[in-house]
Amino acid sequence: MPTIVVDVMPKAELLDPQGKAVAGALTRMGAERITGVRVGKRFEIQVDGPVDAELLEQVRHLAETVLSNAVIEDVVAIHHDDSVMAGETH
Amino acid sequence: MPTIVVDVMPKAELLDPQGKAVAGALTRMGAERITGVRVGKRFEIQVDGPVDAELLEQVRHLAETVLSNAVIEDVVAIHHDDSVMAGETH
Repeated sequence: MPTIVVDVMPKAELLDPQGKAVAGALTRMGAERITGVRVGKRFEIQVDGPVDAELLEQVRHLAETVLSNAVIEDVVAIHHDDSVMAGETH
Repeated sequence: MPTIVVDVMPKAELLDPQGKAVAGALTRMGAERITGVRVGKRFEIQVDGPVDAELLEQVRHLAETVLSNAVIEDVVAIHHDDSVMAGETH
């Protein structure tokens, strides 16, 4: 079943306390080359049938109105991957 | 500054109540072709200097030990993108 992935991140200009906390923890663990972290949401949406332009447009609309808060978040990417595998590095 | 993206999702075999709630809402809004939703986390990690194998390995270790709970989550992807732009569809 095809999967559409929607990535939502806090707006770049906003403070991200969660990201700051994670960055602090990673730095204290010795990861000196890490200079910042931002934490967002990743939605995997399983859909029935082929992913066409109309469906992608519907998902973009839902992403911008339901899956994210337009005041504090941006939909940074929408991509579909028919074989979303665990542990895949790409 | 290079950015390494870490995607973390709930283990596939686990119930995802948050995902179920989102899927229900999207279906009630008329998105009949959506059959399921899973909600995970997306980390954008800014790093100093070039992204090399050693740094990627360090980030993978931190992803599996700090950024995710190995009991209930999988690190599904680690990728680096020197130009993570808002609103980019790819």
